[in-house]
Amino acid sequence: MQRSAAKLPQVERIIIIGTGLLGGSIGLALRAAGYPGRIIGVGRRMETLEQARQLGCIDEPAADLPAALRQPAGRDLVVLCTPLSAFESLLATLAGCDHPGLIITDAGSTKQVVCDAARRLLPDPSRFVGAHPMAGSELHGPQHAKADLFVNRLCILTPQGTGASDESLQVVRDFWQALGLRLTEKTPAEHDRVVAAISHLPHAMAVLLVQLADERTAISIAATGFRDTTRVASGDPRVWTDIFTTNRAAMLEAIDLFADHLQQFRRLVSDGHEADMMKLLSNVKKARDTWLKQTWGE
Amino acid sequence: MQRSAAKLPQVERIIIIGTGLLGGSIGLALRAAGYPGRIIGVGRRMETLEQARQLGCIDEPAADLPAALRQPAGRDLVVLCTPLSAFESLLATLAGCDHPGLIITDAGSTKQVVCDAARRLLPDPSRFVGAHPMAGSELHGPQHAKADLFVNRLCILTPQGTGASDESLQVVRDFWQALGLRLTEKTPAEHDRVVAAISHLPHAMAVLLVQLADERTAISIAATGFRDTTRVASGDPRVWTDIFTTNRAAMLEAIDLFADHLQQFRRLVSDGHEADMMKLLSNVKKARDTWLKQTWGE
Repeated sequence: MQRSAAKLPQVERIIIIGTGLLGGSIGLALRAAGYPGRIIGVGRRMETLEQARQLGCIDEPAADLPAALRQPAGRDLVVLCTPLSAFESLLATLAGCDHPGLIITDAGSTKQVVCDAARRLLPDPSRFVGAHPMAGSELHGPQHAKADLFVNRLCILTPQGTGASDESLQVVRDFWQALGLRLTEKTPAEHDRVVAAISHLPHAMAVLLVQLADERTAISIAATGFRDTTRVASGDPRVWTDIFTTNRAAMLEAIDLFADHLQQFRRLVSDGHEADMMKLLSNVKKARDTWLKQTWGE
Repeated sequence: MQRSAAKLPQVERIIIIGTGLLGGSIGLALRAAGYPGRIIGVGRRMETLEQARQLGCIDEPAADLPAALRQPAGRDLVVLCTPLSAFESLLATLAGCDHPGLIITDAGSTKQVVCDAARRLLPDPSRFVGAHPMAGSELHGPQHAKADLFVNRLCILTPQGTGASDESLQVVRDFWQALGLRLTEKTPAEHDRVVAAISHLPHAMAVLLVQLADERTAISIAATGFRDTTRVASGDPRVWTDIFTTNRAAMLEAIDLFADHLQQFRRLVSDGHEADMMKLLSNVKKARDTWLKQTWGE
């Protein structure tokens, strides 16, 4: 994990594909950091792009990706911020753009499938550096974008997944750090495995808790605990369907481990093992409180 | 569900047993509501009682429960705010106090076991009205007590569980409403079943998520989603061991239903059923967003 004074990425233009909460916040954060180049937004819906422009997230919308990349004058950086299911087609389009100075990164929540697609589709995968900025919200749309969304959050880079070149890695590191993120590196497989444990599985549990409470018509009496425990379940269904689909192996492994733990917990309840239950709850409280203190200073 | 102008409970004194976050907040809320009688605190640790007194949660600490109930001059209300495992011994002590004007309520998170104990131990169970004020926090101790902890939260009363008298019910209703709570009534079994779904099961899931992330040494990279999803797992291990133990039947039923849902979810992931996954996530988002709007105005 590294943290250093922010250096602006040395590129002429930054093209953000998908100007929702994440892409919009990237634009605002770039401006806040003093990035002097053009920020171009690309997306399917002109309405969202126009809204992003009005909010100051981008300088100009582009009708499509080839239009955005026309007349390259040096190095450009493309940042994929759409749901993961759009990545393949975007990478194929990028592969067809004749732009020797193009460097690509992404904000997708899974990395193996993304890096594999970049290797398979791009003529020079070493110009792609996978990234996962671990910040977000259950809200979506540029109207919820915030310039400080990424400040002090962690960004996991996966340069090994595409054999990223030193030049590409430098630009991509500078880019994410300029937004306020702390950087760390993992292999795509390592990334997917740990993120399944701390993000994708918890998301699935929140979804299943709402499902169960709703089936029992119990949700109306729920209180603040339920609200926080299930907050992420209000996230974008498309985004999360893509995440679960593209992190299949790690999700299945995490689900099976969780199901084992659930049965162990069930035994503690059914057999009335109070001392073991106390021990489990105490260990968990300690682990969480230590993490809170170390990560959030709480 | 009812809501009416707060009327103060017609009792000479209110004796709060357990002056932590809940008991302390009750004292502060009583004072904020203008309750004119004495507020007495009872607890095992004089240090906590003294702290509660200094914070204005209680007027005076009592060395023990019989001491607090000496010289009754009319109607008194006792509120049990300790972890559930202390209830039996407290009810036995209350049964031995010769106090014809005593009315008892509690703030325990399970109700069948509590009402059964009251029926079994008290000479006149109709003077006991089980209650579950659905407010709290993962923090504990009187230093975290807040006068507005209960405002607009729901309190579930279980008068049927002890055949509560009209007089007792009136006093207990006035008491909880004066703190700002909205009241509803359920049978103890109904209460335990719905609360398992929206509080006890979610708590267990938060615990198991921290356990799994900690085992995988993945917790250090966790972000805001994980922080919220697992917030309750920093709760008091004693309090939650008691809750899981005393809500055994409803917990086991909820765990088994959840385990079924987990396997259904696993199949959606393993078989790549994107359309079904989208449908599940969309339904859940809709249910949660509707609840948020109706309950929290968000």
